[in-house]
Amino acid sequence: MKIKPSLSKGTRDFLPSEVAKRNYIFDTIKSVFRKYGFEQIETPAIEKLETLTGKYGEEGDKLLFKILNSGDYLAEVRNQKSAISELEPQEITPLIAEKGLRYDLTVPLARYVVQHQDQLAFPFKRFHIGPVWRADRPQKGRYQEFYQCDADVIGSSSLLNEVELLKIYAEVFEKLRIANCELRINNRKLLEGLAEYHGLKDHFESVITGIDKLDKITKEQLLESYVKLGMPSNSIDSLKNLIEDITLKSDLVLTDILDGKKKTTIGQVGAKELNFVYESFIKNYSGQVKITKDYTLARGLNYYTGLIVEVKINGFAIGSLGGGGRYDNLTEIFGGQNMSGVGISFGIERIYDMMEELNLFPEHIAEGVKVLLVPRDSQTEEYTFRQVQTLRDAGIPAEIFLGNVKKQKQFAYAEQKGISYIVEIGANEMESGNFRLRHVKERQEVGSGFTLSELLQKLS
Amino acid sequence: MKIKPSLSKGTRDFLPSEVAKRNYIFDTIKSVFRKYGFEQIETPAIEKLETLTGKYGEEGDKLLFKILNSGDYLAEVRNQKSAISELEPQEITPLIAEKGLRYDLTVPLARYVVQHQDQLAFPFKRFHIGPVWRADRPQKGRYQEFYQCDADVIGSSSLLNEVELLKIYAEVFEKLRIANCELRINNRKLLEGLAEYHGLKDHFESVITGIDKLDKITKEQLLESYVKLGMPSNSIDSLKNLIEDITLKSDLVLTDILDGKKKTTIGQVGAKELNFVYESFIKNYSGQVKITKDYTLARGLNYYTGLIVEVKINGFAIGSLGGGGRYDNLTEIFGGQNMSGVGISFGIERIYDMMEELNLFPEHIAEGVKVLLVPRDSQTEEYTFRQVQTLRDAGIPAEIFLGNVKKQKQFAYAEQKGISYIVEIGANEMESGNFRLRHVKERQEVGSGFTLSELLQKLS
Repeated sequence: MKIKPSLSKGTRDFLPSEVAKRNYIFDTIKSVFRKYGFEQIETPAIEKLETLTGKYGEEGDKLLFKILNSGDYLAEVRNQKSAISELEPQEITPLIAEKGLRYDLTVPLARYVVQHQDQLAFPFKRFHIGPVWRADRPQKGRYQEFYQCDADVIGSSSLLNEVELLKIYAEVFEKLRIANCELRINNRKLLEGLAEYHGLKDHFESVITGIDKLDKITKEQLLESYVKLGMPSNSIDSLKNLIEDITLKSDLVLTDILDGKKKTTIGQVGAKELNFVYESFIKNYSGQVKITKDYTLARGLNYYTGLIVEVKINGFAIGSLGGGGRYDNLTEIFGGQNMSGVGISFGIERIYDMMEELNLFPEHIAEGVKVLLVPRDSQTEEYTFRQVQTLRDAGIPAEIFLGNVKKQKQFAYAEQKGISYIVEIGANEMESGNFRLRHVKERQEVGSGFTLSELLQKLS
Repeated sequence: MKIKPSLSKGTRDFLPSEVAKRNYIFDTIKSVFRKYGFEQIETPAIEKLETLTGKYGEEGDKLLFKILNSGDYLAEVRNQKSAISELEPQEITPLIAEKGLRYDLTVPLARYVVQHQDQLAFPFKRFHIGPVWRADRPQKGRYQEFYQCDADVIGSSSLLNEVELLKIYAEVFEKLRIANCELRINNRKLLEGLAEYHGLKDHFESVITGIDKLDKITKEQLLESYVKLGMPSNSIDSLKNLIEDITLKSDLVLTDILDGKKKTTIGQVGAKELNFVYESFIKNYSGQVKITKDYTLARGLNYYTGLIVEVKINGFAIGSLGGGGRYDNLTEIFGGQNMSGVGISFGIERIYDMMEELNLFPEHIAEGVKVLLVPRDSQTEEYTFRQVQTLRDAGIPAEIFLGNVKKQKQFAYAEQKGISYIVEIGANEMESGNFRLRHVKERQEVGSGFTLSELLQKLS
């Protein structure tokens, strides 16, 4: 039974060189997380569907991967249904699937915090890096299985947490040499206040969804879409005014709210929070990454309740490289006490694509093997093998080539694996104990007549 | 909608302290893999069911987690079936599920090698660490989602690969301080030769399965089970003789085959291979880990064709901590050319349990935060925040405590996170710039009146 091998759509294999680059990104982010006191946790890929369902909106529920129950999973269907025509996914799925693959790392975090609260140290600062799954239509840069990378603080309402998370962004992007990025921040309470001021309190969710589209469509198109949705014409006018406010290229809307010219209590709280975070970041950061207040930033997900942030890269047609914000009610859905949380997320897949395109990965990314020892024939294999052990015992990562191919291929092998030197060992070398060292890339001799110990010095 | 949060059966959350310990094991193994020239790859969790099905036997197929197709996945069922009573899993599953979760890392490796052979450097030495999923009945130490950790060489038939892999085992277990373990090796060709010599060639698979049980049941019980299976009585006698051969506490069976007393060509090849690997390992290794030839070692999986190995830990009631062997035909199932492969696997979950029970994890396992700065009240919060930044800029992992709890809880927080020192900052400290450093564990003052720079020296 021979099958032409292929991947399930929207999934990927990673070659060693790709894994090395991905690890470089992960390790950079992890080191910063740890420096700031965040600890790593893990949750399973498989969650009960009752944990996942209803948390991501109707659209999200459709995108959950569901896992078939084991054994005779159709027994309940045979019990409850009497005709094949009754088999509709909506009704059948709950009967045959009770598990699913996690859709993000945030809902599992909420479950985790409620479930393990007695074992955790609060404020709980955790990070989590791992794959999530969505039954989305795959397209360039969008996969059904992809990594998320999140840091969150649960159980502290201090705004200094927001400032620290922004600093983590800045530090990571500097380390990755993507320093030409911009942290755009806004505050959900400020937007809520503006909606209230303009008499749109009851339409707040539509307002957020609309504003969120402003980087893709024009104001006019947005207003038209609202007309089409059947919003009353006075609301449309209010919306127009609100959009005027937030698209002004100045801080006027902020000062108007703070001065009380635009009167809204919740808006004023939001404005103060925004200013505090902005100024505190500026005061405590002197690097290259920019920060701006962007009143048009809304972030689609509706669980945010305070500061929101997105990382934009200027002059590069790519979405945000990360985003996050404060949410006040996440643990409530699992019956936990109301714990305020704030978190950020790194868009690993986009960061990778961008670094690849801009050639930002360091040349020697993987600490690979330093030297490849090649036995010229089977007579010298065991001798060569022993030399490799000696090198390794001296702490030098070394490899013996055990394939049966031409010299050119041996060099190609070494080059592909990023090995710097090659030493061929034949009967001569075995007798004399003198070796000829060659550079892999330049295909050139570095020197000959080395003893193994001289070679050791050369390499270490 | 409040739900009491819980995990899907057979899955686990990991607390920060557990992740740190697991990472310690992974990092130790990875560093040895890399030193020997193995490179990391990744494959997706989701594979096509056509890739997975039929590779793990009938029992394995039942244990595959299958993922429901998206959209109206029941359309085909409604087309093909006319009565509810026809709904039997065996027939319905292929109509509603085309994807599954990987069951191990070996079949994905075979697919990967065939699919990417033009991009890989051969001999291809890869390692892979990641979760796999099996719909097994969960029990102590057995999970539905668990990690595998494999290293394999594909495309080289040299027995020195076997020796290197055994050395990797030895080096890893020494580093993990589990040096009282034993590498038990055998050779499938030797067993095949013995089966041939005793006239059991046609029953080789049953012989392997039987021998594999010899560490759990007695010889007599094993023979009885063969009688029950309806094997002819002359075969039972032959089997008895074969078992006598392999359970002798000497190398007699090996020398008999090598001397030609027991005549079998394939057995002789196996005996020579076994001796070569054994002697070559002894010659090239001087550490504490023992190696023994164990003629009763069979390893259940039937794709092995040469050397087989298992890591046993003496005086500890736990299964093997790892196992592996050579397989010659794995890539063939995906239409690849016949590439010989050899690999080993670490039983991560068991290694973890054992290290935990024997207290083998180092005390300071995670490079965590060194000092916790605690603002005494909201007036000193911003000042404290700046001091934390200064410490971090000097390379000292530091944290500010932003929770609102009693002093005792602050110490508990620091202790749980493995933070060594605590510095409280109130109005006095802010004015004087002098700090009092306290040990977290001992709850004792290390000294007071330190300036920040003195503190820095103390900490770094």
